[in-house]
Amino acid sequence: MFYYIQSIGTREAFCDLQMTKADEKWMNLALEIADRGAGYVSPNPMVGCVIVSADGTKIGQGYHERYGQAHAEQNAVDSVTDRGRLEDATVYVTLEPCAHEGHTPPCCKMLGELPIRRVVVAMEDPTPKVAGRGISYLREQGISVDVGLLKEKARRQNEFFLHHQALNRPFVTLKIAQTLDGYIAAPDGKSEWISSLESRTMVHRWRSRYDAVMIGRNTALLDNPRLTVRHIEGRQPRRIVIDGPLDLPDELNLFTDQYEEKTIVLTHNEEKFRNEADPMLSLLQSDYFRGKTLLVDEKEGHTDLKQALQELGSLPVTSILVEGGQNLASALLRDRLVDKVEIFIAPKMLGGGTRSVMGIGIDHMEEVLELRETQWRQVGKDLLFSGYF
Amino acid sequence: MFYYIQSIGTREAFCDLQMTKADEKWMNLALEIADRGAGYVSPNPMVGCVIVSADGTKIGQGYHERYGQAHAEQNAVDSVTDRGRLEDATVYVTLEPCAHEGHTPPCCKMLGELPIRRVVVAMEDPTPKVAGRGISYLREQGISVDVGLLKEKARRQNEFFLHHQALNRPFVTLKIAQTLDGYIAAPDGKSEWISSLESRTMVHRWRSRYDAVMIGRNTALLDNPRLTVRHIEGRQPRRIVIDGPLDLPDELNLFTDQYEEKTIVLTHNEEKFRNEADPMLSLLQSDYFRGKTLLVDEKEGHTDLKQALQELGSLPVTSILVEGGQNLASALLRDRLVDKVEIFIAPKMLGGGTRSVMGIGIDHMEEVLELRETQWRQVGKDLLFSGYF
Repeated sequence: MFYYIQSIGTREAFCDLQMTKADEKWMNLALEIADRGAGYVSPNPMVGCVIVSADGTKIGQGYHERYGQAHAEQNAVDSVTDRGRLEDATVYVTLEPCAHEGHTPPCCKMLGELPIRRVVVAMEDPTPKVAGRGISYLREQGISVDVGLLKEKARRQNEFFLHHQALNRPFVTLKIAQTLDGYIAAPDGKSEWISSLESRTMVHRWRSRYDAVMIGRNTALLDNPRLTVRHIEGRQPRRIVIDGPLDLPDELNLFTDQYEEKTIVLTHNEEKFRNEADPMLSLLQSDYFRGKTLLVDEKEGHTDLKQALQELGSLPVTSILVEGGQNLASALLRDRLVDKVEIFIAPKMLGGGTRSVMGIGIDHMEEVLELRETQWRQVGKDLLFSGYF
Repeated sequence: MFYYIQSIGTREAFCDLQMTKADEKWMNLALEIADRGAGYVSPNPMVGCVIVSADGTKIGQGYHERYGQAHAEQNAVDSVTDRGRLEDATVYVTLEPCAHEGHTPPCCKMLGELPIRRVVVAMEDPTPKVAGRGISYLREQGISVDVGLLKEKARRQNEFFLHHQALNRPFVTLKIAQTLDGYIAAPDGKSEWISSLESRTMVHRWRSRYDAVMIGRNTALLDNPRLTVRHIEGRQPRRIVIDGPLDLPDELNLFTDQYEEKTIVLTHNEEKFRNEADPMLSLLQSDYFRGKTLLVDEKEGHTDLKQALQELGSLPVTSILVEGGQNLASALLRDRLVDKVEIFIAPKMLGGGTRSVMGIGIDHMEEVLELRETQWRQVGKDLLFSGYF
């Protein structure tokens, strides 16, 4: 089986090195274990590493488990019990080994000191501090390095990280749970429940993988949601609510439950922010997030969402799952700030109520927003549509 | 492999006769060839027949090809070249052989005179004139009859016929081509093209299988559609337009093209109908359809759609593909007259324009219309959702 492998020396040139089925198997395993870090390693990327001895046996594996802790390569090397078997071994890693001192020493240096023969890397790390330096370093140590195996899969796995690296704002996924005819609530305003239990459980899993969940002011008022991870085990996300006038009631679950310190409010009401929010800000700031309330500009009477995302990106929040409602979803689409949509379509019709999306600045069919890399799958009784802008 | 086979003597009792893989294969073939009659045999059902000799070889096959012509069983028997091989043969037929004289002599009598050993029937014919009589007759002739193999598939194949037999009104399928967010046209009113070419081609195939295609007055005015079969080869359908006030312009394609005699107008404007439509009616009536314009009652300011369907059913029109627009779709849903929906969902968002469905009499989530026996499949770039009410 042939793969096109990107040669690092000539970025745009591809050569068709022959990779074996075994290479693919081990890289798939590395990707699989990398995924266990989802939600815990941000703003770092997920990374997985598998070490295979010269005779083709797996002798070690590891992944980046938690932000600030050891990298995947180190964990994999540490898991090798018989260090002698590292002689001429191959290391599979889902992202280029780092070349800079951070919380941990550079992985390329650590690997370069091993008697390994070859490193297979799924994709280069675009972080300016790495950007090929890790690979070059390994080659300088006489280790053969192949880059590009399952690159597309690796890129998808770290789409939050890569997006944030490139644009310094979070990757935004818009989640909608709607009927076939595009309604997210009945005429009486109720939305319990359009989607199936399976779909709702899946959303809880997503919450544990995204840095933050975001809602608009109306949803906060109408539904008073908790936005926590409940149906499954997982890391609780930050919770972001856009509250332009900064007057949401203090009693909301977002401000009173055990995760209140995870709630970030974005407002454009400067006066109120200066009077009320600022003192809280200094009280509630943590070592990682600036605090509870962020002030951004007003734009046509609403909170400037692009600026809001930039502020959140610099915290850093690398990924946001937007869970409603119609106003926020439509505003984000209008400003072209949505990167991906996940739409649960329940096999039901309402014929009225709240539409999923209304007013995104389109008048003619030529301007229609088209999704790409679309996927459909069944979840419970619902269909889940996924696509990218 | 076991199937539950319905015994004709005790309608509600099921016994688990053992059917072979071969039985299933031949019945599937019979169903497959029956389908070739789609669009041509209405108001009759589609029927397919396969004859297999005692040594397990297929010696004949046939299907009901066109309304008024030979039945499947006769065509299958006629296709047998060596009549000697009918000795102890098995006949697979997708619907109970008829027991009454029609355009053709009863099939059960014809089969009863053959030296065959066994007949396998997918499903009983519920038509009052048959209703088990065909099967009983065969058994009286000493032929073994098994009923119920692939019954569900057979029932689906003839859902138009069975629905019309049971309710004397057509089976109504609502076709919608919409964006993800439930819009069927952009704010400027244009709908070219929401769905992909593959989806539009599929609709032309459907047109050739349904007795009639139906649209509302607004769609006739706005789009001036032809509703003909074009992208594929196939039978042209009747075209039905609901024109309550009876004042659609004469220049519309539906009234001027080469298929104008296939257009049926339904109105509740009695005065205009008496003055204008009646003379035309006598001019344009055909041997099979009553004519061009049908008068039905007014109901809350609109044409009474239930009565309209009953009138159409007695023509007989056994199946209708409803192709728009929002008003007609919503009215049919409101009156619970839709039997099936086929919704093409294009991976696009408009955020405004004409909604697929608006106002179907639902205020609360408990009243939501749920679809059953739902299916999703990819058609071009679109998703096709199918479901029954």
